[in-house]
Amino acid sequence: MKHADLLIHNATLITCASPDGPKRGPALQDVGQIQEGAIAIADDMIVAVGCSADVRGQVSAGKSIDARGRVVCPGFVDAHTHVVYAGDRVQEFEMRIQGAGYMEIMAAGGGILSTMRAVREASVEQLVAESRDRLDVMLRLGTSTAEVKTGYGLSTEAELKMLQAIEQLHRSHPMTLIPTFLGAHAMPPAYKKRPDAYVRLVIDEMLPAAAAWYERSPFAATNMPLFADVFCEAGVFDLAQTRQVLAAAQAQGMALKLHADEFENLGGVSLAAELGAVSVDHLDVTPPVEMRRLAESATVGVVLPAVNFNLGSQHFADARALIDAGVALALATDINPGSAPCPSLPLTMAIACRYQRLLPNEALNAVTINAAHAVGLGQRLGSLEVGKQADVLILDTHDHRHLAYEFGRNLVAQVIKAGEEVISE
Amino acid sequence: MKHADLLIHNATLITCASPDGPKRGPALQDVGQIQEGAIAIADDMIVAVGCSADVRGQVSAGKSIDARGRVVCPGFVDAHTHVVYAGDRVQEFEMRIQGAGYMEIMAAGGGILSTMRAVREASVEQLVAESRDRLDVMLRLGTSTAEVKTGYGLSTEAELKMLQAIEQLHRSHPMTLIPTFLGAHAMPPAYKKRPDAYVRLVIDEMLPAAAAWYERSPFAATNMPLFADVFCEAGVFDLAQTRQVLAAAQAQGMALKLHADEFENLGGVSLAAELGAVSVDHLDVTPPVEMRRLAESATVGVVLPAVNFNLGSQHFADARALIDAGVALALATDINPGSAPCPSLPLTMAIACRYQRLLPNEALNAVTINAAHAVGLGQRLGSLEVGKQADVLILDTHDHRHLAYEFGRNLVAQVIKAGEEVISE
Repeated sequence: MKHADLLIHNATLITCASPDGPKRGPALQDVGQIQEGAIAIADDMIVAVGCSADVRGQVSAGKSIDARGRVVCPGFVDAHTHVVYAGDRVQEFEMRIQGAGYMEIMAAGGGILSTMRAVREASVEQLVAESRDRLDVMLRLGTSTAEVKTGYGLSTEAELKMLQAIEQLHRSHPMTLIPTFLGAHAMPPAYKKRPDAYVRLVIDEMLPAAAAWYERSPFAATNMPLFADVFCEAGVFDLAQTRQVLAAAQAQGMALKLHADEFENLGGVSLAAELGAVSVDHLDVTPPVEMRRLAESATVGVVLPAVNFNLGSQHFADARALIDAGVALALATDINPGSAPCPSLPLTMAIACRYQRLLPNEALNAVTINAAHAVGLGQRLGSLEVGKQADVLILDTHDHRHLAYEFGRNLVAQVIKAGEEVISE
Repeated sequence: MKHADLLIHNATLITCASPDGPKRGPALQDVGQIQEGAIAIADDMIVAVGCSADVRGQVSAGKSIDARGRVVCPGFVDAHTHVVYAGDRVQEFEMRIQGAGYMEIMAAGGGILSTMRAVREASVEQLVAESRDRLDVMLRLGTSTAEVKTGYGLSTEAELKMLQAIEQLHRSHPMTLIPTFLGAHAMPPAYKKRPDAYVRLVIDEMLPAAAAWYERSPFAATNMPLFADVFCEAGVFDLAQTRQVLAAAQAQGMALKLHADEFENLGGVSLAAELGAVSVDHLDVTPPVEMRRLAESATVGVVLPAVNFNLGSQHFADARALIDAGVALALATDINPGSAPCPSLPLTMAIACRYQRLLPNEALNAVTINAAHAVGLGQRLGSLEVGKQADVLILDTHDHRHLAYEFGRNLVAQVIKAGEEVISE
């Protein structure tokens, strides 16, 4: 008999297991359901998974939870967030409802640059305090791991402040956070007339500073990645600038992500595939030829339908076509104060099922195993498999499909993070 | 000094006060905000509302809550629900994602008639138990009052069973429920070839039975209305049948509601205005001439955008035009297992702000004071005014607009229903 600290049994177990990388194609419809299933946890790891009777025969557990009538599934992974910020943009939300365009909002002090000003003015402690409340909400909704981007600092000092805030939150909050350096998120006002000088600043000063920060951080010490990301978009960073920044980041040893094809197709998907980026995100206007290119690569495609919803848009990324082309698809919230004030992966799943024609099973794989691969942790998180970290949800439903079928409520009853119960009923 | 049981002070108070009926036009943008506001509650009633200093000078309270940094607003009223049902329709949800049309779903045993079968097979106790869980979720999300329709029985016996379930829930759950008899919700299979015979059954047998039930119910004893409603739609009940049923209901002393203009415009809005219906609901395809007719009437217009969202639709009721025409607009969830598995009025507000261009203040008035008028209780509920029932929410935000700006989370920290704290932090 193996020793376990915790046995969860009699559950409708949803493993999302996928030993050979992210799920693609028809495999996305399979969530690895085990009726009358159980998992056993020792310390922070999963040590057994299977039918209740089998698992009970293998382990002697200190504590057990009878999950009859309930679903047990992996903790959700939010693979694309801007959750560290200061202030809000509710004023801009009202202006948009009243018909204001992007330029009008910018002229009124809105947009990414308004959050940049708020972040530059905030101390690390303020950033940590405001963001901690949002992480608490996300955890309550089942998100046990989240990628977090910088990109509201846009100066070396302020970008490092954001990395420090991410580090403090990672150390002190139950959630696992994965840092992404996004110095190339927007053009700061001082560089408006000399964008290439900003690209040089990012490459020559910010990237080395971020790499140096990482080496002394707990992320390096625990073999977690540091990502670099660029907002590749018309009027923001063009394809050549994007390539420059990503190549420099790669030379610093960083893993790569990319914002591509949100408004205009500049070829970012092909660049991501060429450079071996871990993920390429948005994909709202990706043409079929680049979908096929992405499907043939190891890069995960991340769609962010809460953004389209938030803009009241009729247009959504064609996630159905991406899956059908063979792309390893993940879903994320993109939580940020402007385009997606949304902490909820279940609601993101609900939007995806309705406006992108994902099946509930596909949406669930897209926020668990595939999302874990989208943050470079597919071997450690994202599914209920022996040897993975014990990030587990107990849901107040008998059918996991209700996560996407119902909308506007929270079905998460309990959250176990690395073997510790961090949200109780 | 007046006596009070509870004082809530130092709040950002949102009263939604409107002494002269529902809000229309520019008044919908005013939520009656009082900075540093307070309310005092004695027994189940509001006895004082105003600036904290003034209210503290008027009352001596047994208990007080310091709501600094928080919003205090009226409990939400969900003016259109089908929350009493049995079973779910997640299978149908998946079929629709895979492209199945209405007829295909019907042929596979889906649609309203599948819920009819489940309700007919369920006991009153089962209906009460399943629906109580949903009411608990709605209450946690801030809904302190809900209209509830029958219409899944479609026989005299099963419709009365639904009324009994509504009555039991009203007696035993903290929420106030308002019953609506909706025998004319769909054509039961046995009457498919003789629809007029079903209309006669509704008029001759069901309506008198419902009226007799009501007279012995706690609703009559407390001067609460009993509504009658008809699904006036091409292929369901035509305008002549609708008029017959509603006129008969009115003769029985019932107040009127009407499902109109969800798919086709049959003239239901004009009929509702002509008969003095309390509300007319859906309004997805209402033409401008009928919008003006509605604006000139006392009838409240109720829009249900969670339905359009649930269907992944690009089309929503033109709530902006309804408000601009002068209609007293309310928002409701329409919670039901087929077209809106959504218990959340805040999410409904969020959808309305994005896809119907309501401002956050308009959406908040639409789920409080105007929704109370849409269920005939505008003089008793729906705003924080002296003499109204003390249905009060304390929100975990400093700005009520975050109810609509953020989406996918629950900002409701505490719910006070008729003076009793029923949801605590």
